[in-house]
Amino acid sequence: MRAEILCVGTELLIGQVVNTNATFLSRELAALGIDVHWVVTVGDNFERLGQAIAEAASRADLVLLSGGLGPTEDDITIEAIARYLGEGLEERADVRQHIEELFRKRNRPMNPTNLKQALFPPSATPIPNPSGTAYGLYAERNGTQFMSFPGVPFELEVMWRSWARPRLTGSGVIQSVLLKYAGIGESDLASKVSTYFQGTNPTVAPYASNGEVHLRVTAKAASSEDAEALLAPTVAALSAITPYYYGRNEETLPSVVGKLLLEHKQTVALAESCTGGLLASRITDISGASNYLVGGLVVYATRLKTELAGVNADWLAAHGTVNREVAEELANGARVRLRADWGIGITGWASNGPDVPAGDAGLVWVAIAGPAGTEAEAHRFGEKTPREVIKYRATQVALDLLRRRLLI
Amino acid sequence: MRAEILCVGTELLIGQVVNTNATFLSRELAALGIDVHWVVTVGDNFERLGQAIAEAASRADLVLLSGGLGPTEDDITIEAIARYLGEGLEERADVRQHIEELFRKRNRPMNPTNLKQALFPPSATPIPNPSGTAYGLYAERNGTQFMSFPGVPFELEVMWRSWARPRLTGSGVIQSVLLKYAGIGESDLASKVSTYFQGTNPTVAPYASNGEVHLRVTAKAASSEDAEALLAPTVAALSAITPYYYGRNEETLPSVVGKLLLEHKQTVALAESCTGGLLASRITDISGASNYLVGGLVVYATRLKTELAGVNADWLAAHGTVNREVAEELANGARVRLRADWGIGITGWASNGPDVPAGDAGLVWVAIAGPAGTEAEAHRFGEKTPREVIKYRATQVALDLLRRRLLI
Repeated sequence: MRAEILCVGTELLIGQVVNTNATFLSRELAALGIDVHWVVTVGDNFERLGQAIAEAASRADLVLLSGGLGPTEDDITIEAIARYLGEGLEERADVRQHIEELFRKRNRPMNPTNLKQALFPPSATPIPNPSGTAYGLYAERNGTQFMSFPGVPFELEVMWRSWARPRLTGSGVIQSVLLKYAGIGESDLASKVSTYFQGTNPTVAPYASNGEVHLRVTAKAASSEDAEALLAPTVAALSAITPYYYGRNEETLPSVVGKLLLEHKQTVALAESCTGGLLASRITDISGASNYLVGGLVVYATRLKTELAGVNADWLAAHGTVNREVAEELANGARVRLRADWGIGITGWASNGPDVPAGDAGLVWVAIAGPAGTEAEAHRFGEKTPREVIKYRATQVALDLLRRRLLI
Repeated sequence: MRAEILCVGTELLIGQVVNTNATFLSRELAALGIDVHWVVTVGDNFERLGQAIAEAASRADLVLLSGGLGPTEDDITIEAIARYLGEGLEERADVRQHIEELFRKRNRPMNPTNLKQALFPPSATPIPNPSGTAYGLYAERNGTQFMSFPGVPFELEVMWRSWARPRLTGSGVIQSVLLKYAGIGESDLASKVSTYFQGTNPTVAPYASNGEVHLRVTAKAASSEDAEALLAPTVAALSAITPYYYGRNEETLPSVVGKLLLEHKQTVALAESCTGGLLASRITDISGASNYLVGGLVVYATRLKTELAGVNADWLAAHGTVNREVAEELANGARVRLRADWGIGITGWASNGPDVPAGDAGLVWVAIAGPAGTEAEAHRFGEKTPREVIKYRATQVALDLLRRRLLI
């Protein structure tokens, strides 16, 4: 089965919104073994959307549309699909009832324009939206299936999971394992594993991601079991590249570090300066983080480095805030004062500014304090690297350092 | 001038990477008044990339390509463009020299495969990449300009800003102002401003974003001045919708709150539980945040709510961690203990779990403590809303509450 993803919305074409729906649907289709060859985005324009629908229908068995289901006049996806089907629109009583009920529940008056969202072409099936007024649409024509979802990401995701995914099964299976590496660059990892790039089934392809590198291993087979068997030896060999390999698929550095801390029944506490809470936030993106993250200090003002984390004030006055000693004292301060098994301290220059010594923008010190002592590393992420990238990469380094200590 | 964006990479089609390059280029083109009608993504497949290049060339004056410039075999963008141009590839001495120097500077041995990145079709101009080995490509054929950039977002952005953007000027201008609103839903805002949706120049279109609503006001005109004049009255009227309107274009709630704090010469301190540092991280994404953010406490463990922020331990034992009193004591604790003008406290259930009272998943209490006292609000973000969405929306509420207090 071959799918095409068609995203609708002028907000995408002018760059106001990042197209995460395409990413989500692509990932889900890949997991089902359904090939995606094209992802196309058009604006709220009836002619071009119609052209894109016709093109997609000509080259795919399944067309997934996202966006354009709202109540306003520039929401035209249902009309465009109706035009492709050669049908008009009629009001669906059940959808209207759902919309009216939703407004009643939320205790808000319904705007009459919302009833537009109850109009569907006669041959289509509305796809229920448990969290909003925008029902989706399912239709078939000439062997191509159409599924249309609202553009609000979590509504699309819920409707995909509850309605669409259970209805799709791939013929044959493309199975893929994503292997993840930290602390090594793309070309260094690629040259270590270059012999694998010649294979055709499975294939191995490298990708640099934000502060880490991924290898995607993909096999095609008649069944899921056959694909697994094709993947297994390559995945085993590539997972043995220590200490860089850290996890696979949905695993992230925060999730893997969390799992290791749980296994060791240990806890961690943080003292962040330049990352400003991003490390804490990434760790708490994992459900269950309260089992191993005690908490964190965001010590942005210099005086808080002393007051909250106990960094020596004289040292700060004499040597400034970005150096090995401050990172180590932050890590120790977090560990001791918040009472955790591990402490992480981060201090650096996330962007250039009047206080930053020449050439030091992008310099970050990361320290880990643990049962066996404290160590620190300096990283230079580049003077022109954007602030958020420096923050993110510093958290990657911190997580990877803790991971390596937990593996010992 | 009409542009098309063509993104290359199987990692995009299987959903491994979010296509932020398309967003970036779309936004930049919109700012230049260059229309984008199609954004197309294909994989590392020579035939389909060739087809996409030909289609894009047939409907656009400017084709921007992203990705596929790496040193590995599946990086095929340059070859595909050469094929479209009907040319072969030759090595460029200056590009080769740049690549070799970069490896010398980084003190790493150069992999011979990297020399692939010095190959270009003869009629093309390489686009310098100051931060990596992947040079871009500029070419022209039959009135269509091609610009190809590496897929690494910040390399693409640097090359766009330094090389490509200065070379582009739109004929006629499409100018757009994005107005941003917090604390109001899309349909409520839309019905307040519905008369504006009928206009054709400027046009006004609403978009729901994560925990806020945007109105895009767009005008077409011969010159930038004419477009400004067309936009001005509508922008003025729509900016007067208080207290919801908070800023425009690149402004965000963190940047607007930061600006207000700077204007008032005031500071803020945080005590976050369920948002786990995300509020601190969002505030510190703004350059210069150290002028108004003192710091923050991530009080994930219950005992830290008492030890670090001074929340009454008996109350916590009797009433649990998610209620008005705890949010208020967190806000006060942050304000008093970290010595700031304002304190923000957040406590809630970011996802379901064994400790969460029935129906309370997604419930978040946000409190603001300031010179004139403390206030708190409860928000229910939905039991099935993803953890990261709840965290993000809670930070939106906190920022908006502080913004409104700063406006009084």
